[in-house]
Amino acid sequence: MEQRHRVVILGGGFGGLNAAQKMKRARVDVTLIDRRNFHLFQPLMYQVATGSLSPGEIAAPLRGVLSRQKNTQVLLGEAADIDPDAKRVILRDGAAFPYDSLIVATGSKTSYYGNDEWREWAPSLKSVEEATAIRHKILYAFECAERAETEEEARAWLTFVIVGAGATGMELAGALAEIANETLKNDFRRINPQEARILLMEGGPRVLPAFPEDLSTKGEKLVSKLGVEVKKNVMVTCIDADGVTYKFGDELKSLAAKTVLWAGGVIATEFGKKLAERTRAETDRIGRIKVNPDLTVPGFPDIFIVGDLMLSLGEDGKPLPGVAQVAIQGGAYAAKVIRGRLEGKKDVKPFRYFDKGNMAVIGRAAAVADIFGVHLAGLFAWLTWLFVHLIYIVEFQNRVLVFVQWGFEYLTFSRGARLITGDAATDSLDRPAGRNIKSMGDGR
Amino acid sequence: MEQRHRVVILGGGFGGLNAAQKMKRARVDVTLIDRRNFHLFQPLMYQVATGSLSPGEIAAPLRGVLSRQKNTQVLLGEAADIDPDAKRVILRDGAAFPYDSLIVATGSKTSYYGNDEWREWAPSLKSVEEATAIRHKILYAFECAERAETEEEARAWLTFVIVGAGATGMELAGALAEIANETLKNDFRRINPQEARILLMEGGPRVLPAFPEDLSTKGEKLVSKLGVEVKKNVMVTCIDADGVTYKFGDELKSLAAKTVLWAGGVIATEFGKKLAERTRAETDRIGRIKVNPDLTVPGFPDIFIVGDLMLSLGEDGKPLPGVAQVAIQGGAYAAKVIRGRLEGKKDVKPFRYFDKGNMAVIGRAAAVADIFGVHLAGLFAWLTWLFVHLIYIVEFQNRVLVFVQWGFEYLTFSRGARLITGDAATDSLDRPAGRNIKSMGDGR
Repeated sequence: MEQRHRVVILGGGFGGLNAAQKMKRARVDVTLIDRRNFHLFQPLMYQVATGSLSPGEIAAPLRGVLSRQKNTQVLLGEAADIDPDAKRVILRDGAAFPYDSLIVATGSKTSYYGNDEWREWAPSLKSVEEATAIRHKILYAFECAERAETEEEARAWLTFVIVGAGATGMELAGALAEIANETLKNDFRRINPQEARILLMEGGPRVLPAFPEDLSTKGEKLVSKLGVEVKKNVMVTCIDADGVTYKFGDELKSLAAKTVLWAGGVIATEFGKKLAERTRAETDRIGRIKVNPDLTVPGFPDIFIVGDLMLSLGEDGKPLPGVAQVAIQGGAYAAKVIRGRLEGKKDVKPFRYFDKGNMAVIGRAAAVADIFGVHLAGLFAWLTWLFVHLIYIVEFQNRVLVFVQWGFEYLTFSRGARLITGDAATDSLDRPAGRNIKSMGDGR
Repeated sequence: MEQRHRVVILGGGFGGLNAAQKMKRARVDVTLIDRRNFHLFQPLMYQVATGSLSPGEIAAPLRGVLSRQKNTQVLLGEAADIDPDAKRVILRDGAAFPYDSLIVATGSKTSYYGNDEWREWAPSLKSVEEATAIRHKILYAFECAERAETEEEARAWLTFVIVGAGATGMELAGALAEIANETLKNDFRRINPQEARILLMEGGPRVLPAFPEDLSTKGEKLVSKLGVEVKKNVMVTCIDADGVTYKFGDELKSLAAKTVLWAGGVIATEFGKKLAERTRAETDRIGRIKVNPDLTVPGFPDIFIVGDLMLSLGEDGKPLPGVAQVAIQGGAYAAKVIRGRLEGKKDVKPFRYFDKGNMAVIGRAAAVADIFGVHLAGLFAWLTWLFVHLIYIVEFQNRVLVFVQWGFEYLTFSRGARLITGDAATDSLDRPAGRNIKSMGDGR
């Protein structure tokens, strides 16, 4: 048998999975390598963190999705290094995978802006583990408030701070408000969950900075109506066991809060850095690699970068954002270029991102959406959000389940996945508050 | 306000939760204390372990279940000690809870028959964490087999041993066979999952020892038909990273198996031991406490024991088994006795267990059931099992979801919750096989 063109894809997120699927009928051998055995529907992660969905409901096993695609194999492994001249990717366990074409879709990780020690106190929403750690933190805080010995202690347990008012921050804040005001309404005897204080802190002058200004205004109004306190132009200077310290103008303030959630920015992963180093590629402040118009790394026409790691400029001259649509379209484009080259096509059109719009959900029947320049806020934006997300969830099964779960929740305000699990479920009753995020994430 | 009769319930499993619910209209103050914030539908745990259901789908938040029961409060905490003379329970964090009546429903934990070091290599099915650790182990084994460098290594990854052929062992073996033969059928390129070897080891002379002999025979036939090798009269003498060593007659044999699951016996928890010590109560070999006919501890008429910790003899003179029905009926009985005492009733009838039957599911359309002396095996037993379990699942929402999930799975052989999560999802690629059960349980 002839040796077919070998395509290696790193990462099974939106970019990598779509690239693999678009290679279905090509005469190539595809190897998809991911650290995890599942594709995750990231846009619904906040629903796992807030107890609406179980991780299994927003995940689809990569092998399952690709099982009928005979030219494709899936491997569990983590890319650690690359030799772009020998055309080989090296995994963490030392195994080397030679490629003819490489699609790098390894994504990004959470950036604490150089303060990695904050991670212990303020988990972000990047992995399933962190999402369940957040779920644990939120539910556990109410439990501790119920058992608190002083008013002050109870208050600290009932104060929730979300740092970053992008789409993720808004979604978390809105869901948290709903948990406090509705889901847990009748569940406690000593505390009143509705007295929980939820603060959304943003460094910039407005919430939802990626949206047009009028939607920022409407978004802030919607989230405030749910009882969330929005603080703009604040700079967080410290996060620890006791809460948050932040600067507002010249003032330095401290807030006692046992639960802090991080919805800040992202940065390149270790492998992304390695790749930039090995290819001497140009990167931006957050480590994204500048690519050619055909999404290849300058000087290495066989290496494509798609998704969060890719620095590609849109028509407005601004870098394309790290959202699912950019990754999906980038993955499909890279697959098309590879297929075209094999067929001997010469004229490759540059990648053009087709912006279908931008949405953020804030609460029940409340969202903002910017679709082809049409600005929506409130119920209709929410219905649009609902429709789009149901359509996109990868596996049919999950789509049905999520729909049932949501329908039930909408009618009853209940949340189905309210588990506090892991060693820390009980251990941490004896420990300083908020510790052990990692073990707190056990068990979902 | 007058001080009402204080009922403290330890444990929110079948026994404790039912006791609490049966106290709904009583003029008492109920405090339900559990280490977890959720009630778990234990009989379906094996479906979490085998990737059919998410933990959230078999769990119901205790606060949610009891939120409308105004005389009841739920607290997150773990009982560590008891002072039966001062009538106080002491939690692990030092907090003391005085009671007028106490219902102990703290259950049991897995017994490794004195070989606790086996736990690291052979998780059992007692907690959500362990169930997801098992899920991880099973799925991960196939991934490693796919990447194995030698035939021998692949073979060890594709060999699964289940120790103990009671209902849990049979359920695990059957589900595992289905995963290998159907779910993963098309998912790999180098290995053939259908070549996986699944062994079910039992110390006694027959499987399902708690069932009548003819059902043992039928059960063994059903599970063998799925491709499971049943080994009876074997004594496991060692479990470690490489596999299992066992005695069969005078022979000592070793089997290379990277995945070993423990479906052995149970033993009293630490609190159970403490309670026996403080009340000088009689216990049996596995630490169960002998109770009076009214389920109270001899000499302490205000302390009831229900569920797995209770040693109470049935009409046949044998101890009642550690199954959900015994706990449910015991909990309801204890609540009734307490209510009766408050109303001044003197003649308390002794507890009588009403045996509704015993069931074990083996695979698709395959189960055995012993219902009021009627012995069923095969499809009809399975339909009965399905019906009974759907009815019993605590929360309506979960019932619907489980039903949708099962329906889909039955039609497609797919499994919705096939996540390998936790630090170890990637870390352990570099580590000795099977290590780190604890961290492997992260993320579900």
